[in-house]
Amino acid sequence: MRNVYIIGVGMTRFAKHLDRSIKDLAGEAVTDALKDADIGKKDLEGAWFANSTWGFFEGQDQVRGHTALASMGIHEIPVTNVESACSGGSQAVHGAWLGVASGAYECVMAVGAEKLYNEDKTRSFKALAAGTDVENIRPMHEAWFQRLREAGIEIPLDERDENNSARGPMMDIYAYMVRWHMKTYGTTQRQLAVVTSKNHWHGSLNPKAQFQKEMSVEEVLAARPVLYPLTVPMCAPLGDGAAAAVLCSDSFLKRLKSPRPVKVLASAYGSGAPGFIDKSDKYIAARLSGKAYNMAGVGPEDIDVVEVHDAACFAEIKLSDALGFCKLGEGGPFAESGATTLGGKIPINVSGGLISRGHPLGATGVAQLHELVTQLRGEAGKRQVEGARIGMAENGGGTIYFEEASMAIHILERMPRRSSARKPKVLGHSSTGNETC
Amino acid sequence: MRNVYIIGVGMTRFAKHLDRSIKDLAGEAVTDALKDADIGKKDLEGAWFANSTWGFFEGQDQVRGHTALASMGIHEIPVTNVESACSGGSQAVHGAWLGVASGAYECVMAVGAEKLYNEDKTRSFKALAAGTDVENIRPMHEAWFQRLREAGIEIPLDERDENNSARGPMMDIYAYMVRWHMKTYGTTQRQLAVVTSKNHWHGSLNPKAQFQKEMSVEEVLAARPVLYPLTVPMCAPLGDGAAAAVLCSDSFLKRLKSPRPVKVLASAYGSGAPGFIDKSDKYIAARLSGKAYNMAGVGPEDIDVVEVHDAACFAEIKLSDALGFCKLGEGGPFAESGATTLGGKIPINVSGGLISRGHPLGATGVAQLHELVTQLRGEAGKRQVEGARIGMAENGGGTIYFEEASMAIHILERMPRRSSARKPKVLGHSSTGNETC
Repeated sequence: MRNVYIIGVGMTRFAKHLDRSIKDLAGEAVTDALKDADIGKKDLEGAWFANSTWGFFEGQDQVRGHTALASMGIHEIPVTNVESACSGGSQAVHGAWLGVASGAYECVMAVGAEKLYNEDKTRSFKALAAGTDVENIRPMHEAWFQRLREAGIEIPLDERDENNSARGPMMDIYAYMVRWHMKTYGTTQRQLAVVTSKNHWHGSLNPKAQFQKEMSVEEVLAARPVLYPLTVPMCAPLGDGAAAAVLCSDSFLKRLKSPRPVKVLASAYGSGAPGFIDKSDKYIAARLSGKAYNMAGVGPEDIDVVEVHDAACFAEIKLSDALGFCKLGEGGPFAESGATTLGGKIPINVSGGLISRGHPLGATGVAQLHELVTQLRGEAGKRQVEGARIGMAENGGGTIYFEEASMAIHILERMPRRSSARKPKVLGHSSTGNETC
Repeated sequence: MRNVYIIGVGMTRFAKHLDRSIKDLAGEAVTDALKDADIGKKDLEGAWFANSTWGFFEGQDQVRGHTALASMGIHEIPVTNVESACSGGSQAVHGAWLGVASGAYECVMAVGAEKLYNEDKTRSFKALAAGTDVENIRPMHEAWFQRLREAGIEIPLDERDENNSARGPMMDIYAYMVRWHMKTYGTTQRQLAVVTSKNHWHGSLNPKAQFQKEMSVEEVLAARPVLYPLTVPMCAPLGDGAAAAVLCSDSFLKRLKSPRPVKVLASAYGSGAPGFIDKSDKYIAARLSGKAYNMAGVGPEDIDVVEVHDAACFAEIKLSDALGFCKLGEGGPFAESGATTLGGKIPINVSGGLISRGHPLGATGVAQLHELVTQLRGEAGKRQVEGARIGMAENGGGTIYFEEASMAIHILERMPRRSSARKPKVLGHSSTGNETC
């Protein structure tokens, strides 16, 4: 496989962009990414475009990327329209990566753009429902109730709402997951608030973030409940935005005058398994990160900065062990220790994560790589992770069974590489990774 | 780039499958393709899934491939959901091809599945409208009227219906195109009927075709008009179906006991340009086929069997010169000469094409490759093209300007290759291809 580099990134601020169209948002992200790469539209040989809800809200699907890119004067190149609920952006990056790695294309773009916010929030929540097997939403919930019952956790009838008209359909599932984790590993609501407060602080340092305001642990705990133990600031907001990344080959890189490339060490993409996963090291994020670590020839101890898919803050706790950064079940205390805070051992979601930077579905996976590239280039300003050399992004999307329908993990490395050799490959992370920290 | 082979294909009959779901149709196609390849589900390392209207009709989008494949017990592997109006199936194949060519995957699948037929046909037509830039449908039509006016062709007011409530929105555009072609090159309505009658005869020989009934030229001409000069049988029907293809690498191929592989010589994918194309050799199909011929190291004279995107029969006439099989503007007389009929010089749409085999959007591009693989293996029965060695498929999708929003061209070759060497590469087809026949 050929080497692949990210040479340019761009994104809009994530926000409620009531007066802007998808074309307009995507246009800003693409223009910024091309400028960042110091290339022109004519240099692009292909594009992958991620969006999930344009059809639902405005009837535009089938040729979404074609219409958005044509509105910017980008024509003729192959455009692949992808979607995968919250992980569509990473699907676009994975496609673009295959395009360059294969030798078929020298310079391509991955774009994600979404307008999810609607003044009638029930419309937004309805749009989110398509991130699952829509004819089996009730059986999926019933399976959860049954599995929790076996673990001694009963979900009261008034907390069962698989139609999810008043809150995002995924937040119920997250709440069920947390209750199981609390009972099994002793995770506390306060730990959830610690993660949330941390990410809101991180977001306050990011000019692209939807929320740029600090929140204390007490404020998070006192906020309006969604479904116990989740409160509103613990959940990703509805919002709009776009992000873009330019990927290229070695030969294209050589044509650039002053490139600031970041190397893609791994692009691992996969889907969920059907059974209930009671051990994080069997969870999709552990399986995929094992694959990604092997592709990259690095281990969890080599990662300097991480973006994870905290659609609810709990995900960060679950992922901390699944990705190999702490021991099984210890994601809560690990966050409480400050290890995942900017300045800590392994800063997670320095961008603010989904709960503070925002989460316009199709754009999120690309925005995660925007953050990593910015960090690895040392251009992250107040939120810079000192000396960051290798970064990881995890992006999940939808749910069919108990775990995510799809997930992608990318590992990036700054260029030029430091003179110190990389540490030896960590083998077998997928089965032992939780013991590596 | 690594070699890529198609080792298995499967498809449902294309038809009005009122009582069957997308999951069920996709399940039949996938099961047949795996059986045809003589491999199991566990051998698949990835899948690309094309569909355009599941969300419109049933609210299932975002994770379409994940839910469809999960219903068949296919889990964990990366699934990329793609769509590109009528060419989504080829987008899936192109993605799968990149996956194997890159070295990331050894064995993957491309699947297309669609349920387009609705008893309320206006619903089906509305679904099709999303194959264009939905907020610019009227300006696109106005641009056509203006361009035709410049050519001395006036579209009467009662033939302008950009809302397309009573017929497919693309058929108006096709009718405008034909009128220009008739005036410019002397193409006749009878030639359209000849193509249509031929494809209905071909369809009568194909047990997977939606229509399996011959129609005479006179019957086609006497049928109900859609918009002059098109009559109903000249246009692809609304229908449902699914198709699947298994793609693999050299190393995977070696693991199989009795493979019947077909080699992918070229996978070229692209988008339309904005201007009106008045010369077929500048048309997207000429640009892309030039690229495909160069990738494959063959020229139009090497092609033995062709599947093209005849959403309206006229497309076949236009494509005959754009792909280099006859001189500029002579597609009509070329069809009339019998050259494109089974048994002729270069048989086109031996499957029956879109107008007879059927056209369930996302499935069509994969079904075209199903036909080519069947032909190149010599397994096409009554419609076998004698000694077929190299086949080409052209699949277009949607429209934003004057030409297709997207298009893919694949060239396949039967294995093992005959001892005779391939003819030398045809260079510069994209500018001179129309003179090659």
